[in-house]
Amino acid sequence: MLIKEKNPHGGDIYTHKGMLDFSANINPFGIPDEIKNAAADAIDGCTAYPDPYCRTLRSKLSEQEGIPEGWILCGNGAADLIYSFAYSLPPNKPALIVSPTFSEYQTALAAAGIAFEHYMLNEEKGFILDDSIIKKDFSKYSAMFICTPNNPTGITVRPELLIKIAETGVRLFCDMCFMDMTASPNQYDIPDMLKKYPNLVILKAFTKSFAIPGLRLGYVLCSDGEFLTAMSEKSPCWNVSIPAQEAGCAALDCKEWLSCTVQAIGSERERMVSALNSMGLKVFPGEANFLLLYSERNLYSSLLEKGILVRDCSNYQGLRKGYIRIAIRKPEENDRLLSAIKEVQR
Amino acid sequence: MLIKEKNPHGGDIYTHKGMLDFSANINPFGIPDEIKNAAADAIDGCTAYPDPYCRTLRSKLSEQEGIPEGWILCGNGAADLIYSFAYSLPPNKPALIVSPTFSEYQTALAAAGIAFEHYMLNEEKGFILDDSIIKKDFSKYSAMFICTPNNPTGITVRPELLIKIAETGVRLFCDMCFMDMTASPNQYDIPDMLKKYPNLVILKAFTKSFAIPGLRLGYVLCSDGEFLTAMSEKSPCWNVSIPAQEAGCAALDCKEWLSCTVQAIGSERERMVSALNSMGLKVFPGEANFLLLYSERNLYSSLLEKGILVRDCSNYQGLRKGYIRIAIRKPEENDRLLSAIKEVQR
Repeated sequence: MLIKEKNPHGGDIYTHKGMLDFSANINPFGIPDEIKNAAADAIDGCTAYPDPYCRTLRSKLSEQEGIPEGWILCGNGAADLIYSFAYSLPPNKPALIVSPTFSEYQTALAAAGIAFEHYMLNEEKGFILDDSIIKKDFSKYSAMFICTPNNPTGITVRPELLIKIAETGVRLFCDMCFMDMTASPNQYDIPDMLKKYPNLVILKAFTKSFAIPGLRLGYVLCSDGEFLTAMSEKSPCWNVSIPAQEAGCAALDCKEWLSCTVQAIGSERERMVSALNSMGLKVFPGEANFLLLYSERNLYSSLLEKGILVRDCSNYQGLRKGYIRIAIRKPEENDRLLSAIKEVQR
Repeated sequence: MLIKEKNPHGGDIYTHKGMLDFSANINPFGIPDEIKNAAADAIDGCTAYPDPYCRTLRSKLSEQEGIPEGWILCGNGAADLIYSFAYSLPPNKPALIVSPTFSEYQTALAAAGIAFEHYMLNEEKGFILDDSIIKKDFSKYSAMFICTPNNPTGITVRPELLIKIAETGVRLFCDMCFMDMTASPNQYDIPDMLKKYPNLVILKAFTKSFAIPGLRLGYVLCSDGEFLTAMSEKSPCWNVSIPAQEAGCAALDCKEWLSCTVQAIGSERERMVSALNSMGLKVFPGEANFLLLYSERNLYSSLLEKGILVRDCSNYQGLRKGYIRIAIRKPEENDRLLSAIKEVQR
């Protein structure tokens, strides 16, 4: 018996054993040795409780992000912070989710007993968020969720548009977990935006960039200290383990490794887009380390039969059967996926 | 800036650096090598997400506890599960906390917006829970929190009394995190109680017994599958890291190590009780790996000056200035504490 009948996600290698996994959007170059060593070395010190304030990690993050430490809250993975955010919202107003997107926002809102509505991106417009969202009456909503680059499309929200939305004053939860995997990780002036818009909460994670989803480490940035304190009170003491805190500190010294691997992923992404287009699939112009595809063939099942796991996106709000998401992996692995897709599409 | 102005707890070695720490109730024999190795070996596999259902760990726990896997829910430390429990309670009734006790119950209830009342144990009766609690009108409460052995007194609730309380049908959260550190870890027939009382939720942890608070791993047992599912939905997916899951599996093979160390701690506890009594301190007859003391001298501050950190219990509901809690550590360390107390008491 499983107990947690959670939303299906990518990366469930426990149900699908021994598969080549394209379903989880993790840096395919694996964990840098410096991070592995830092996490392993930290085990000896686990006889102590973790620092509930993550002081060392937040001090390093503060330098890297160019913002005060008091604007940073760490969590047990990004998902933990999505829940803390949802639990911090007032119960009497719904939240607005720009969809299709990551399902944990609505799962967290449901856990917190908060109603929600979807703002549906238009399939015919390529799921691109445009200025028409500004016409919404934001006073009706307690908060709004935007993911950029969006999961599963990989498409980013234009900086000017994000600023326009922040200017409405709506409590804006902006998930940038995949931003560091794009070619323009600094396209938003985060310190400036945070300073100007205390209603803005930015989510980031180490999970994807440094390939450590198994360790659990994410953080949010927000200049509204009172709200950040409220969020922190919604989750228990000691929620970030010592190995995760130490891994995070080590990761902040691996910037060069990150930019090299992101560049390699970018080349592979371009190669994949061309190859998939030439096979007659609809490929969305994602900017991160994954791509959303549409095919009328049943790619998910056919690939599963060939030992390849991709993310079936048919259960995303606003998507349907035929949509799948694939991670960008190393060249040889991508070749294996391309050959398999070619066989199915033939 | 700290952000999380959480309740003060023991084990804050980050604020009190370089101290000999008697404030956290951790097995003083440290982490067994088998557990260290399992956690360190697990780092390589952290490129995958954790199993959200903790299938391997729950299967092993099910064997050890003699109950079905479906009665087990794992969490990111015991604190995580206290929060999930609080978030699962109906908002319209208060909860009852048998106090003085661990402060996280009321902190979690406050986070969940649940009112609470204290059922005060009587100082003159040695903080022992007796049958008079049965006279309470339990229908007024959504849930009740009992800690056995209780933190900070170390005193256990008689099995017959615990059964009588469970029989009232109140949703009973029973924190047994320190039970494995007593000389009678099997004094409750847990499988039988769980089977008879689906309203019973038992909390256990690996933290104290195997000295891994820095890794975060706890679990609850309950035969009410619907309630356990509701609890699991209150916390995010992937909340238990891979190193924690692997450490837990390894810990279940360290039963002999545990019983040896608990025996050694038991001898030291007896020695400490005699020594402290002979110094004129009031010592409560705790059964776990810590002791509650009362002294009219300001022991907390005096010991801090001597480089020894103990748990100041003056902020516990129902306690006052002069109460401190000390962990039982290794003989030489205990000697150092005893000498220091002797100097202060002189």
